[in-house]
Amino acid sequence: MSEELKKGLRGVLVAESSMSYIDGDAGRLIYNGYDIEDLAEGASYEEVLYLLWEGELPTRDELDAFTDSMSAERAIDDVTLDALRDLAAVDEDPMAALRTAVSTLSASEPETDADPEDLDAARRKSRRIVAKIPTILANYDRFRRGEDAIEPREDLSHAGNFLYMLTGEEPSDVAEETFDMALILHADHGFNASTFTTLVISSTLADVYPAVTGGIGALSGPLHGGANQDVIEALLELDDSDMDPIEWVKHKSEQGERVPGWGHGVYNTKDPRAKILQSKLEDLTEEDGETKWLDYTTTIEEYLTDEKNLPEKGIAPNVDFYSGSVYYKLGIPVDMYTPIFAMARAGGWVGHILEYIEDNRLIRPRGRYVGPKDLDLTPIDER
Amino acid sequence: MSEELKKGLRGVLVAESSMSYIDGDAGRLIYNGYDIEDLAEGASYEEVLYLLWEGELPTRDELDAFTDSMSAERAIDDVTLDALRDLAAVDEDPMAALRTAVSTLSASEPETDADPEDLDAARRKSRRIVAKIPTILANYDRFRRGEDAIEPREDLSHAGNFLYMLTGEEPSDVAEETFDMALILHADHGFNASTFTTLVISSTLADVYPAVTGGIGALSGPLHGGANQDVIEALLELDDSDMDPIEWVKHKSEQGERVPGWGHGVYNTKDPRAKILQSKLEDLTEEDGETKWLDYTTTIEEYLTDEKNLPEKGIAPNVDFYSGSVYYKLGIPVDMYTPIFAMARAGGWVGHILEYIEDNRLIRPRGRYVGPKDLDLTPIDER
Repeated sequence: MSEELKKGLRGVLVAESSMSYIDGDAGRLIYNGYDIEDLAEGASYEEVLYLLWEGELPTRDELDAFTDSMSAERAIDDVTLDALRDLAAVDEDPMAALRTAVSTLSASEPETDADPEDLDAARRKSRRIVAKIPTILANYDRFRRGEDAIEPREDLSHAGNFLYMLTGEEPSDVAEETFDMALILHADHGFNASTFTTLVISSTLADVYPAVTGGIGALSGPLHGGANQDVIEALLELDDSDMDPIEWVKHKSEQGERVPGWGHGVYNTKDPRAKILQSKLEDLTEEDGETKWLDYTTTIEEYLTDEKNLPEKGIAPNVDFYSGSVYYKLGIPVDMYTPIFAMARAGGWVGHILEYIEDNRLIRPRGRYVGPKDLDLTPIDER
Repeated sequence: MSEELKKGLRGVLVAESSMSYIDGDAGRLIYNGYDIEDLAEGASYEEVLYLLWEGELPTRDELDAFTDSMSAERAIDDVTLDALRDLAAVDEDPMAALRTAVSTLSASEPETDADPEDLDAARRKSRRIVAKIPTILANYDRFRRGEDAIEPREDLSHAGNFLYMLTGEEPSDVAEETFDMALILHADHGFNASTFTTLVISSTLADVYPAVTGGIGALSGPLHGGANQDVIEALLELDDSDMDPIEWVKHKSEQGERVPGWGHGVYNTKDPRAKILQSKLEDLTEEDGETKWLDYTTTIEEYLTDEKNLPEKGIAPNVDFYSGSVYYKLGIPVDMYTPIFAMARAGGWVGHILEYIEDNRLIRPRGRYVGPKDLDLTPIDER
C-alpha cells in the first residue's frame, strides 16, 4: 500500500465508466461516445437520459415507451407536498428544500423493499426520482410565492413541463428547446464530487434515495454547483452600476475580485457547454429583443479573451458564464439555478449508481493517524 | 498519475486525522490517544465528543459548559416534528425518517448564512445536530406507536435523556451506563464509508446538515451499518426454534448461512468493542435475571472460537454480535439499532468534518473512460 497522501483524491482512478469523457485540453465533452454539441442539437434530455442509463440511443419506439414511463411518474405524494409547504413557510433555501424533499420521497416509494442489487428495481426508482424533481422544484417556488400546488402535465417534455409548472404557462418553443439543452449540458461530467458522493453512498448498498439526497448535498457546496448563480449576480451588479462592462471588469480586478464564470478545474480552454449556451442566449435575445445580457457577456468575453486583460493566464469561460443569463431570460429565480443543476445532474448520478452497483465494491479509503497512541486516562477531577 | 484502478479506494490514504486509530491485528481502537476500553469505563459520551471535537479531554468546568451547551439544544422545531408525524403515519423506515428529519433541521438553523469555513459556526451547528438526533429518533418511535411528542430533559445525560424520551421513564443506572458506553464505542472508526461521505460532501464547502444527511444515507446500507440488527433477528429466530444454540449454528452452517456478527473488514481478532458490550450484557443480565441472550451469545462464541467449527478461519465476534442483545434488553425496537448507530457516529462525522475543512481540499477523483469516443449521431427515425 502506498503511503502517499492523496488529498482530494486528485488523479486517483476510482472506477471505470462509459458515461462521460472530458478532454480538458481540446474542450471536448462526450456522453457514451457522442459529442455534447451533437447531443444538444440533435437529441432531447429524455434521449440523453436513455443514453446515459442504457448505454445507447433509443429508437423511436424505445424513446416513446421511456418518455411515457417517465412522465407518468411526475406527480408527488402529499407527505412531500406538505413538507415543501412547511419549508416554504420558513423560507428554507431551495437547494436544501430539494434535498429534504427527495429524502422524503422514499416514504412513498412502492419498491422500497427491493433487493439493493436488483438493477431493474434500482432503475425504476431512479426514473421516479428524476421524474419528480421538476415537480418538487416548481411547487416549492410556487409555495413560497403564495401560490397553490400545480399538477404536472404528462403531454409536455421534461423541460417543457418544468417551465409550465414554474410559470403556469406553456413555454415558447425557443424557451423549451433552450432549457432542454441546458439540462443535457449539465446531465453528466465524470467523477465530480456530487457524483462521487452518490457512489460512496450506494457502494454500501444503500438505496437510490439516500444516494441522490447525498448528491444534492454535495452539489450545494460553493466549490461545486453552489456558485452557479454568481455570474448573474455579478451581471446584475454591473447592470445596476454606471459602468460599462469593460470598466466594470477593470474595477473588479482592481479590487482583487475575479469575474465569476471563468476558469474550470477540468477545462483548459473554453468549456464546450459555454459555447452552446452562448448560441442559445443569442436565440433568446432575438426572440425577446432584450439585448443587454448578451452584450455584457459578449463584451466581457472579448475583453478577457485577450490574455493581457486576464487576472490569470489560460482561463476561459465555463458553463456558468452563459447559463446565468440564459436562466434569467427564462424567468427562473436566481436561487433556483443550483437546484436546476441538480435536476439535470440527477440523470448522471443515477446512471453512475446503476453502472457502479453492477460490479459493486464498498468505497472505504484509509486515513493516516497522526495523533498520540498511548495516553493514560486521568480522572476528570484530576485534570 | 497512476493508471491503476483503486476500486473501493482500498488502501488509498485520503487524509490525516488524529481522531481514531485502529490496529486490526491487535484488536485495538484508540480515540485521540486513549484506548477505547479506558474511555468506555472512565468517560461519558459527552466527554468523548469533546475529545473527538477538541482533540483533548475536558476539565470538569469545560465538560460542564460543553454539556450545558449540548443539552440546551435538544428540542426540535415544529417543521421537523410535523415531518416526523407525517412519516410515521406512512410507516417510513426509521433510518430514512432520521435522514429526512436531519435534512429538515437546516430550515431552523440560526446560523445558516455563516461562512462555510467559519469553524466556530460549524462547531455550533454540529453540536446542534448531534444534540437533536436523540429527540428525532425517540419522537419518531413515539409517533409510530400513536403517542404524543415528548420534550427532552436537560437534566439528563445524552444517553439517559434518549432512553427517557423513548420509554417515558428514567432509565436505571445500569441501563444508562450501558447505553452511554454503546454510544462511545460507536462514535468513531476511521475513514469508513459514512464518515468518508460526510467529508466528500463538506469538501465542496457544503453545510454540516447536508454532510450529516449524506452520512446517515451511507450508514443505512447493509454493507455498512444497515445490518446491525441481523444478530438480534438471528437470535430471535434461534429463540423461536426448538434447537439449542450449537444445533442452531450447525443448522445455519448446513444451509450455507453465516452467523451474523462475526468477521469485520478491519479487525482480524475479536473487536475490542465486542468485549466491552459483552461485559455490559452480563451486567444487564444480572439486573433483570433474564439469562437467555447472554447464554446464546456466550455459547455460540465459545463454539465458534474453536476454529474447526468456523465456516472461515480467523474470524471473530464484531461489535454487532453483542450490541443486538444489549439494545434488546434496553427495550430499543429492533429497527432502531441502525439509527442508534447513526446517533453515536454523528459525533465522529462532525469531528472529521471540522478536522478536514480546517485544511480543505475538494475531493474529486478520476474515472477511467471505457466507452466509445467518436460516434455519429443518427437522427432518431433512422436508428
